[in-house]
Amino acid sequence: MSGLLIKNGTVVNDDSMVKADVLIQGGLIVDVQPTISVNDPEVRVIDATDKLIIPGGIDPHTHLQLPYRGDVSVDDFYTGTRAALAGGTTMIIDFASKPRGTLPIDNWRQWREWADHNVCCDYGLTVAITSWSDEIAAQMEELTKPEYGINSFKFYMAYTEYMVRDEEFYEGLKQCVKIGALARVHAEHGPFIDAKQKELLEAGVTGPEGHPQAHPEELEAEATNRACTLAAQAKCPLYVVHVMSKNAARAVAYHRQKGHTVFGEAISAALALDGRGYFEEDWTKAAAMVMSPPLSRDPTTPKVLMDLLACGQLHLTGTDNCSWTCAQKKQGLNDFTKIPSGLNGLEDRMSLIWENGVHKGKLDPMRFVAITSSAAAKIFNCYPKKGKIARGSDADLVIWDPQKTRVISASKHHHGCDYNVFEGMTVHGVAEVTICKGVVVWENGELNVERGFGKYVPLMPFCDHVFGTLTYKKKE
Amino acid sequence: MSGLLIKNGTVVNDDSMVKADVLIQGGLIVDVQPTISVNDPEVRVIDATDKLIIPGGIDPHTHLQLPYRGDVSVDDFYTGTRAALAGGTTMIIDFASKPRGTLPIDNWRQWREWADHNVCCDYGLTVAITSWSDEIAAQMEELTKPEYGINSFKFYMAYTEYMVRDEEFYEGLKQCVKIGALARVHAEHGPFIDAKQKELLEAGVTGPEGHPQAHPEELEAEATNRACTLAAQAKCPLYVVHVMSKNAARAVAYHRQKGHTVFGEAISAALALDGRGYFEEDWTKAAAMVMSPPLSRDPTTPKVLMDLLACGQLHLTGTDNCSWTCAQKKQGLNDFTKIPSGLNGLEDRMSLIWENGVHKGKLDPMRFVAITSSAAAKIFNCYPKKGKIARGSDADLVIWDPQKTRVISASKHHHGCDYNVFEGMTVHGVAEVTICKGVVVWENGELNVERGFGKYVPLMPFCDHVFGTLTYKKKE
Amino acid sequence: MSGLLIKNGTVVNDDSMVKADVLIQGGLIVDVQPTISVNDPEVRVIDATDKLIIPGGIDPHTHLQLPYRGDVSVDDFYTGTRAALAGGTTMIIDFASKPRGTLPIDNWRQWREWADHNVCCDYGLTVAITSWSDEIAAQMEELTKPEYGINSFKFYMAYTEYMVRDEEFYEGLKQCVKIGALARVHAEHGPFIDAKQKELLEAGVTGPEGHPQAHPEELEAEATNRACTLAAQAKCPLYVVHVMSKNAARAVAYHRQKGHTVFGEAISAALALDGRGYFEEDWTKAAAMVMSPPLSRDPTTPKVLMDLLACGQLHLTGTDNCSWTCAQKKQGLNDFTKIPSGLNGLEDRMSLIWENGVHKGKLDPMRFVAITSSAAAKIFNCYPKKGKIARGSDADLVIWDPQKTRVISASKHHHGCDYNVFEGMTVHGVAEVTICKGVVVWENGELNVERGFGKYVPLMPFCDHVFGTLTYKKKE
Amino acid sequence: MSGLLIKNGTVVNDDSMVKADVLIQGGLIVDVQPTISVNDPEVRVIDATDKLIIPGGIDPHTHLQLPYRGDVSVDDFYTGTRAALAGGTTMIIDFASKPRGTLPIDNWRQWREWADHNVCCDYGLTVAITSWSDEIAAQMEELTKPEYGINSFKFYMAYTEYMVRDEEFYEGLKQCVKIGALARVHAEHGPFIDAKQKELLEAGVTGPEGHPQAHPEELEAEATNRACTLAAQAKCPLYVVHVMSKNAARAVAYHRQKGHTVFGEAISAALALDGRGYFEEDWTKAAAMVMSPPLSRDPTTPKVLMDLLACGQLHLTGTDNCSWTCAQKKQGLNDFTKIPSGLNGLEDRMSLIWENGVHKGKLDPMRFVAITSSAAAKIFNCYPKKGKIARGSDADLVIWDPQKTRVISASKHHHGCDYNVFEGMTVHGVAEVTICKGVVVWENGELNVERGFGKYVPLMPFCDHVFGTLTYKKKE
Repeated sequence: MSGLLIKNGTVVNDDSMVKADVLIQGGLIVDVQPTISVNDPEVRVIDATDKLIIPGGIDPHTHLQLPYRGDVSVDDFYTGTRAALAGGTTMIIDFASKPRGTLPIDNWRQWREWADHNVCCDYGLTVAITSWSDEIAAQMEELTKPEYGINSFKFYMAYTEYMVRDEEFYEGLKQCVKIGALARVHAEHGPFIDAKQKELLEAGVTGPEGHPQAHPEELEAEATNRACTLAAQAKCPLYVVHVMSKNAARAVAYHRQKGHTVFGEAISAALALDGRGYFEEDWTKAAAMVMSPPLSRDPTTPKVLMDLLACGQLHLTGTDNCSWTCAQKKQGLNDFTKIPSGLNGLEDRMSLIWENGVHKGKLDPMRFVAITSSAAAKIFNCYPKKGKIARGSDADLVIWDPQKTRVISASKHHHGCDYNVFEGMTVHGVAEVTICKGVVVWENGELNVERGFGKYVPLMPFCDHVFGTLTYKKKE
Repeated sequence: MSGLLIKNGTVVNDDSMVKADVLIQGGLIVDVQPTISVNDPEVRVIDATDKLIIPGGIDPHTHLQLPYRGDVSVDDFYTGTRAALAGGTTMIIDFASKPRGTLPIDNWRQWREWADHNVCCDYGLTVAITSWSDEIAAQMEELTKPEYGINSFKFYMAYTEYMVRDEEFYEGLKQCVKIGALARVHAEHGPFIDAKQKELLEAGVTGPEGHPQAHPEELEAEATNRACTLAAQAKCPLYVVHVMSKNAARAVAYHRQKGHTVFGEAISAALALDGRGYFEEDWTKAAAMVMSPPLSRDPTTPKVLMDLLACGQLHLTGTDNCSWTCAQKKQGLNDFTKIPSGLNGLEDRMSLIWENGVHKGKLDPMRFVAITSSAAAKIFNCYPKKGKIARGSDADLVIWDPQKTRVISASKHHHGCDYNVFEGMTVHGVAEVTICKGVVVWENGELNVERGFGKYVPLMPFCDHVFGTLTYKKKE
Repeated sequence: MSGLLIKNGTVVNDDSMVKADVLIQGGLIVDVQPTISVNDPEVRVIDATDKLIIPGGIDPHTHLQLPYRGDVSVDDFYTGTRAALAGGTTMIIDFASKPRGTLPIDNWRQWREWADHNVCCDYGLTVAITSWSDEIAAQMEELTKPEYGINSFKFYMAYTEYMVRDEEFYEGLKQCVKIGALARVHAEHGPFIDAKQKELLEAGVTGPEGHPQAHPEELEAEATNRACTLAAQAKCPLYVVHVMSKNAARAVAYHRQKGHTVFGEAISAALALDGRGYFEEDWTKAAAMVMSPPLSRDPTTPKVLMDLLACGQLHLTGTDNCSWTCAQKKQGLNDFTKIPSGLNGLEDRMSLIWENGVHKGKLDPMRFVAITSSAAAKIFNCYPKKGKIARGSDADLVIWDPQKTRVISASKHHHGCDYNVFEGMTVHGVAEVTICKGVVVWENGELNVERGFGKYVPLMPFCDHVFGTLTYKKKE
Repeated sequence: MSGLLIKNGTVVNDDSMVKADVLIQGGLIVDVQPTISVNDPEVRVIDATDKLIIPGGIDPHTHLQLPYRGDVSVDDFYTGTRAALAGGTTMIIDFASKPRGTLPIDNWRQWREWADHNVCCDYGLTVAITSWSDEIAAQMEELTKPEYGINSFKFYMAYTEYMVRDEEFYEGLKQCVKIGALARVHAEHGPFIDAKQKELLEAGVTGPEGHPQAHPEELEAEATNRACTLAAQAKCPLYVVHVMSKNAARAVAYHRQKGHTVFGEAISAALALDGRGYFEEDWTKAAAMVMSPPLSRDPTTPKVLMDLLACGQLHLTGTDNCSWTCAQKKQGLNDFTKIPSGLNGLEDRMSLIWENGVHKGKLDPMRFVAITSSAAAKIFNCYPKKGKIARGSDADLVIWDPQKTRVISASKHHHGCDYNVFEGMTVHGVAEVTICKGVVVWENGELNVERGFGKYVPLMPFCDHVFGTLTYKKKE
């Protein structure tokens, strides 16, 4: 039987690192042993001397081919997942999000349609809840059934057409806990942002520098605290997407420490960049950085967020990948509020975190694995099928060269967008070989994968890693 | 081949909980699968329906048969480890500690001699450093060799005959990092305590209530902060034993979050009791609680410490088991400073943590496993041999009944001491069967184990879980 | 010329305490000297040996004869101000508050009408802003003129008929800073409270114990943080009324320490009581405590709030006096949401703070004066006319016996309500003599004052104590 | 009778700012009124239109002509106090400090001898306690008598020849509280510094950049926390001199908020400079900055310290003025541990704080007065004689031009040292006229004062501002 045998590497999981060989057959890992010998010419042997073998990255936060205000983000499910594989990421969780007035099951169906024939790696979905009604509540419950495979819902506290007000959010949280789903939240103060944008435009501020001024990080922290407080009242586990600033992170940690189940996600851009870029003279560069909440203007923020990932006060990393071409960004040339929001990350996340985490001495390789894949697999209930190198797990893994460097550039990346916000950065830590579902899909700088190779991964509710404190809790 | 097959239980590790059968042969776990069938009459089948199968507890902090001021603590390596097994703990780490003026290797040898023929479960050692010289530094390095198997050293900041002053401690920390050993610290302010004891005795305070007054928790916090600060300066990983108060715990978390490797240990007594007991009228009860640092007088402390274990700001649990008979405690009848310091915990730790952690909804069963065994195994570099239920690991495990209750009492416990500080507490979560090294040693309320059944476990330095951030860190 | 000469006392101001005599004539303090001798039979001499002479208390937070949901609070401007004088308070600031749909100037006029002929001591007003429009903004500006004398406005974040949503609040804050007025805020999360009340009533919780459950202190803290954050964005000085819980207080302190002008007010009830009373079996006692935000259920809160007043992280004290008879409270007998909200404090505040602050060793007498009168006088721009014992100041002062005790009881108090939430408490520190506007109005346990003796005190905008950091700030 | 009449200015005290005229006669302020007219040709009228009239600065922390390791600091009591007057400071408190082995009363006498005939402004003394014995304890008590006038003692936790260990410090604290004296502390970790200096020198680090490395700010914070903790145990009010770093300041604020009387002093250098200067290529500039604890290397520290002064978590400002010539500094050319420690500040403090506090919008003028004079006068028990503009106070005051700027430079300053660490800074806020004891001593850029014009100010123990919480505290 055909297969792959990876020899002489160091297998790194989130709980151990050990020299071992890995045998892969039928898309699965069939053995992990100190020494494996196979005498079968159909089994290809790959040498991983001096290399690490890590679980493929899981990016829990992408917006591929997102329709937004009449346009569509340029990384679609094909180019986006190709970029992922080239960087060592083998699974994504995308958001099925449409504005107020749409229905969750319709949106789920639409996303499946867009994704299924195009994804090059496995994917799951989170469904956004952008308004509130009994019908929506009922559809949420329906979506947690195996045929839909949804175990998380997202709520926006900002963006006029997507946001729910606190009273709707609180109802949504209570429904989540009832159906065993994780609530995910975009934490910003929508009404303030609207007022501030108006103020700034009236004051003649039209360039990208208006973006962070309209989204002060103090209000990200405020909204994060508010979201955590409401979730604690609803007794609902909460996942805060894209924690961008120190005080937002501290709010997550505070509520976690009070005994509430809260997960905080940092994104690659926030770990590698700060918001001084919004004030660059080159409009294109500044506009490329526009995303919400914005990058922090405090230059010590990336370091602090990494420290919090290291010590466990933040829990995992994603990208919020939602990329646009320069031409698309130019829609906001005379009005920063019209710049499409979002930036890249899918291809570079793993290397950026190695560089800023492991290479800088903040993370050990096990914690690196935890925050790039295992924690996501646990939280979204697909561990140890995903996020682990062990007998029986999916053969999604990466041969990682910890010493090698590469220079990030749009000229070489696999994204659909024509710029890269990390342009010119040298990073230590490179995905030499990416194996997805048992197949070598990235090697020698070449991708070898077809559209639709990935599959949808249904995610089941009442995950032990999310709801586990309730199982043996005394009845009140 | 003879063996054990545990069927129908839920296997809980620190990263997952799954219904699975467990096959044990030759002292090892040889298989963990959803269903295992064995057709061999020599393999005993144990049914674990509705039970959990958890790794045997590891207690990283005991003082068995400790010689102290002319007396010896009453739980010796035999009774102590028997009590451990009866409560579901299958490994301990004891301290080879003698006063200033002794040499580390001599002490190590002495402890081996006392323990080897008596222990009923496996054990490792930490060696205390109670003075400083070049010879001691050299012996520390020697002790990290495989023939000695020491990867941690303990420093006392209090107790006249054991304490090192800060300048010695700092030298010790620098030596630890050089030889790849973990520094463990008893954090209190020795000179203050001495002065305060004198003050109190002069003021006529002679009873056990003088003990917490002479050891204010503000000074435990102070010393903890000082120890962490010095360790951060020495770039030495630090393990704070018995974190007894909120602010000491916050000091640990603060330094951890600053990027320094610090581990905080809570003990069972601190998670189940508070220090109001020192003011009880019954001298015997009050004296029984005397240990250092003392139990916190703030009644919310046990809950907060558990919250910090839950969220990962504290990291593991031990007992500081060092028990004395009532008669021995009476040496301090007229002078609280002469009450031998220490209390029990080895037998009851697992149940106390289940009760106050899982049953109260603060911990899920995986985190329970983490803080009672896996984290200790990782930190002391014997994972996954210990602390995990997986193919190849030592068959140290417990069939745990999460719903059953028992009432703690000296009349039933297996300790050598004639009281139990947890007397009368009802706890949920009971070790039904304890299996140590593949042998059923505790079942139906009966112990079935012989002296010397346990073995010494050498512990190797430069543990990935302690020093792992240095491996791929750029050279400065 | 007639007058008063107080001899042999210790004059305490917020910056000093010194043995001195005080001469009063024409309603003013005309001299303060170590020894004053007057040879005029019309000058009455009062001996204050062993007594303190302190500025009369200023209560910046009352709701006298408040119309609320068809009823009117029972302490009107006459009984309320009488009670104030009996306890040593000589000035109040009341809120002109009417529901959404009313206009500020109309409300101001209505309150003047109610108060002017009834008050027994001087008073000022704060006007509530309960909806938003250009007309309201214009009236705010008008109200800051001398003929109206308003330099503060209050915003409610809760109570359906009074609350503004964040976007309105933010506009209000911007208007305040423009016109030099202080914004005052009732910080709770209205929409959550509404949802929670519904939940509780549906679950059959109808008694007073439902009140704190519908108003969790976590959400007071949340709203306080939100209010401070929005105020900081608007660059508007903010005054948080009735800080009831530790974390709300910490939010105030946090934003203050970030450089924003925030004042935090504690009320007498929160400094002397905790919220366990809501769970008392006696409905009347429990209902008497109902106010919003509720008293904290954490028994350590009163002590912590006092500590924060002591160190300057909270700034002054009031009462939120809004009292109802037992009969009125009974409107909520079958539905806690219908219990009229409010309790007494005007008469007992000074003694309660002396008892819990000075007598417990947390405050010195100067800080006592600061938090009971001087700080209020400064913040509301009537210092040193009020809040100080100095030549030229109004002769509002109290001869205070620091050692005397009294027992608080409805049977003896001067309030209109037929209970006292502090019933049975013994307090050290008693107002022996109260002098208001140069007249002895309280002496030997008797009040001697007429309706309308007090006057309206116009309060001017752009107060140095509120806006002073802007005067010499560089232009940006 | 001769005198001064200052007309048309704004009188700023720590509690108010008001347009008023000030009349001075016989060295005292005899009147402060909205308008004063004097028809006496001997009274000189000074116009202060558009100017502020503020109390003369009080610098509570100087080391003039300090003998240290065989040398003497270059600003002596003459040049130092001249510089003070030129900058608007009219009183200093100097430290009588000699190494271990000397006696407090001898040192007091020595300092009086050096100072009395040389000071150009009034001064008080704090006496350092550099070892411990019954004799020293007795001398401390003696020194609090009126003939000595000492109400504070200083303890060093670092510097081999000056430091006390914790057990001695604790005894000293207990003695202070007994005799009503304030304990002042230099908080650093002496033994660590000694070890680290050795390490650095052995590693070949000999330049000024070694200084901050040997004095990491983490250890300033540690020692500050330790000092506050010990003082709280001794129930002794504590004054932390030169709080140089954020976490040291937070330690002060933390203990203050816990109810302990702690004062934190910031110095002008820490409010205007950061520690990047130690790494300057120019040895002379880098060495000029050498003081202990060092300036913080975190560039946000000065701003944060000012924020803490603004909100009251730090309490007052000094200078630690102890200046050396470049030639003197050169003693440490090949060994940073031999660079004499100290820098200037006396002349520029007032302007630096106006610039970085008031001009930057952090302080209002009243708080400026508080932290430059009134707080010191209160804490050291010479208020309102000093630190206030009021009838009866000493006529120590400054006509301050809030809008004027000057450029700081050694070429123009009045210090004895030949450099100025603030060289080249432009500051808003200038002392136009300084009046000391009723005499114009600085005007039109000229000093007009004689040696010995200043007098010793005896400072009495049991100050209300320090011990006032004890006066009416219930007996325990």
